[in-house]
Amino acid sequence: MEKKNEAAITIDPAKTALLMLHWQNDLATPSGKIAGNVLERLAAAHTIEHTQAVLKATREKGMLVIFVNGSHRPGYPEVSAKPSPLMDSLLRAGIGVRGSRGTEVIDQLKPLDDEIVVYNYSTSGFCYTDLDIILRNKGITDIVLTGLVTNWSVESTARDGANRGYFIYILKDCCNSLSDEMHNWTLTNILPVLGVVLDSKAYIAALQGQVR
Amino acid sequence: MEKKNEAAITIDPAKTALLMLHWQNDLATPSGKIAGNVLERLAAAHTIEHTQAVLKATREKGMLVIFVNGSHRPGYPEVSAKPSPLMDSLLRAGIGVRGSRGTEVIDQLKPLDDEIVVYNYSTSGFCYTDLDIILRNKGITDIVLTGLVTNWSVESTARDGANRGYFIYILKDCCNSLSDEMHNWTLTNILPVLGVVLDSKAYIAALQGQVR
Amino acid sequence: MEKKNEAAITIDPAKTALLMLHWQNDLATPSGKIAGNVLERLAAAHTIEHTQAVLKATREKGMLVIFVNGSHRPGYPEVSAKPSPLMDSLLRAGIGVRGSRGTEVIDQLKPLDDEIVVYNYSTSGFCYTDLDIILRNKGITDIVLTGLVTNWSVESTARDGANRGYFIYILKDCCNSLSDEMHNWTLTNILPVLGVVLDSKAYIAALQGQVR
Amino acid sequence: MEKKNEAAITIDPAKTALLMLHWQNDLATPSGKIAGNVLERLAAAHTIEHTQAVLKATREKGMLVIFVNGSHRPGYPEVSAKPSPLMDSLLRAGIGVRGSRGTEVIDQLKPLDDEIVVYNYSTSGFCYTDLDIILRNKGITDIVLTGLVTNWSVESTARDGANRGYFIYILKDCCNSLSDEMHNWTLTNILPVLGVVLDSKAYIAALQGQVR
Repeated sequence: MEKKNEAAITIDPAKTALLMLHWQNDLATPSGKIAGNVLERLAAAHTIEHTQAVLKATREKGMLVIFVNGSHRPGYPEVSAKPSPLMDSLLRAGIGVRGSRGTEVIDQLKPLDDEIVVYNYSTSGFCYTDLDIILRNKGITDIVLTGLVTNWSVESTARDGANRGYFIYILKDCCNSLSDEMHNWTLTNILPVLGVVLDSKAYIAALQGQVR
Repeated sequence: MEKKNEAAITIDPAKTALLMLHWQNDLATPSGKIAGNVLERLAAAHTIEHTQAVLKATREKGMLVIFVNGSHRPGYPEVSAKPSPLMDSLLRAGIGVRGSRGTEVIDQLKPLDDEIVVYNYSTSGFCYTDLDIILRNKGITDIVLTGLVTNWSVESTARDGANRGYFIYILKDCCNSLSDEMHNWTLTNILPVLGVVLDSKAYIAALQGQVR
Repeated sequence: MEKKNEAAITIDPAKTALLMLHWQNDLATPSGKIAGNVLERLAAAHTIEHTQAVLKATREKGMLVIFVNGSHRPGYPEVSAKPSPLMDSLLRAGIGVRGSRGTEVIDQLKPLDDEIVVYNYSTSGFCYTDLDIILRNKGITDIVLTGLVTNWSVESTARDGANRGYFIYILKDCCNSLSDEMHNWTLTNILPVLGVVLDSKAYIAALQGQVR
Repeated sequence: MEKKNEAAITIDPAKTALLMLHWQNDLATPSGKIAGNVLERLAAAHTIEHTQAVLKATREKGMLVIFVNGSHRPGYPEVSAKPSPLMDSLLRAGIGVRGSRGTEVIDQLKPLDDEIVVYNYSTSGFCYTDLDIILRNKGITDIVLTGLVTNWSVESTARDGANRGYFIYILKDCCNSLSDEMHNWTLTNILPVLGVVLDSKAYIAALQGQVR
């Protein structure tokens, strides 16, 4: 599998959207119900700071920014009677319920008033949501992924987005997971097969290269 | 095309859901922005009263009830730059914006606190919504349609639902449209090919037959 | 609902595809199992001849042409145990089985070797097919519809395509149905709300206007 | 994440389907264009023999068996102009073209005449195919996965199937990949979160437990 040369990356702000995946309080604040060790890992790797820089540069170009938050309807009617282990653990913990603070974006990366928040039920931003229709009707062909966690929301959205024909960029220092191994496995073995893995610096440089 | 005999209809409340389509203030209250002559037509045909009776009988059986309301995001990001005449007319009138009173269900048919409201952008309840995943995970195989207007929301949801393998019932006195011709054309020529057209009385009788 | 002025129509051949819907032997040859009176109606209205002219002009521009044919797997595994009246009638007649001559395009409108044929199970070209992924990955935003019958395949594909954000053109003299009433009802009341209804002459003129 | 106790597994043959994913000549015969070291790995782990036993036991119960094969249209019209690295490598190698021997199931696991083969373009069996409509209309709620390779077709279909509400079983000795690490990573870290990972022996025992 060849790797694209980062030097060659060009981002067209009119056809590219930044997706902010599951940057929500449940995962990334001290009171978050499933935060576990994620907080310490985010702090150690400065993941939130890198993502803030990306968000700022992206907004300056007037690019489309969409947030995707996990959010279940009260009573979880969208979960089957024989749930997956993943859904079962959410149900038992009673987390991710629509309208709860846990399903809102963390303060450091808050959406602007006119930015779009999509609520999903699963690890993919595309599954049973309006993400796809918004992207296509905005003329978006390329998507840039950041978020939590690398091997679930980011990877499932990358797999699903690539299957739908979107060109995928993954910002490796703007994602994190429960361990280095979890984070690095997919960045090394899976995501480079689906798109281009780059860091926030390279992305911002490519974005700014647009106006030269 | 054979017609099913209404006498033979059996409704299994565990596998059937009642869909309440676009029963929203924009269409069915005096202040509604696109109500036009619909109000008078609803009054003349007692459509709301028939639907109230259906809702009551359905709830008494503990059946799943789902409301589908048209509701656009502010700025209509989900509409393409070259919109259909239908979308163009919504945009020009500035109607159907999420959170507005016009997108809420009319008082006479108000959802209970634990009933589900799905927001859609189009004439089909299934398109880019979570309706399908809720129905399938609740074990629903049959859907009963009521709503406004017969030849748009009801018919598109019937076409789309039948294509997805749901068995469709259409309650003819619980729908209405802009004219008798609009209403009757689809009830006579299109909907009987996609499912079973019956009136509220026959539906309620079939529903109650379940416990005999 | 405003109507677009036909004079203003511009077709970009790089972003537009011609869809040829259910132009198959079952519907439009003397031996076709569900042809009924369609043959006489096609002859009287010169529908096939108009469509031949459209196909020729479209190919000359190098535009994408896609055929959609109804075609069921042997044994109809994709049909539910409680089929719609429409599916029930297909099953009883045993028609539309994949590989049968009835599911092939009629000789007069035969696909070229490199043209795409999509097989579908329902009245919509989009439902459970690869039509959408081909169109989007080819950069298509507008679709032009012809086919049989006006109020089923053409109308369902128009409803479904508009819901997915495609801009829709319907060529009124390149469709037909089981009666004038069936054909005209949707052309007058439904299709102009979803897109632009025009005749083959106006379409060909618009297409050729591209190179002036 | 709790693990389900294998002892408790019950398979209902009427509601469960066996999916045979990408068991095709390109991947698993000596002449296969992308077989690489997969052949030796299949031989060493007896993956094909385990899968043969599973297929036999499954057919004896009259369960639904569906094969999913990667198969592109000539000219790859379904691939975007800016393909993912994965698609780019397929295009350059010119593999997976519909009708080629490489896209057929290997002789050892050949479908019976009345078994269903679904052709897909991507790593998910669900994406732009008719798999979902066949499963739902056959009343299937649980799916059992085998195939090549563990971290692509099997994992993507597991992610996508779980998102659609199917309960997932993964047969760990009926999958394989390009390395032990690739194979084991997902079996250990990802797939147990999406469903139940078990071996062919445990599956066959559970299946036969049904008739006791």
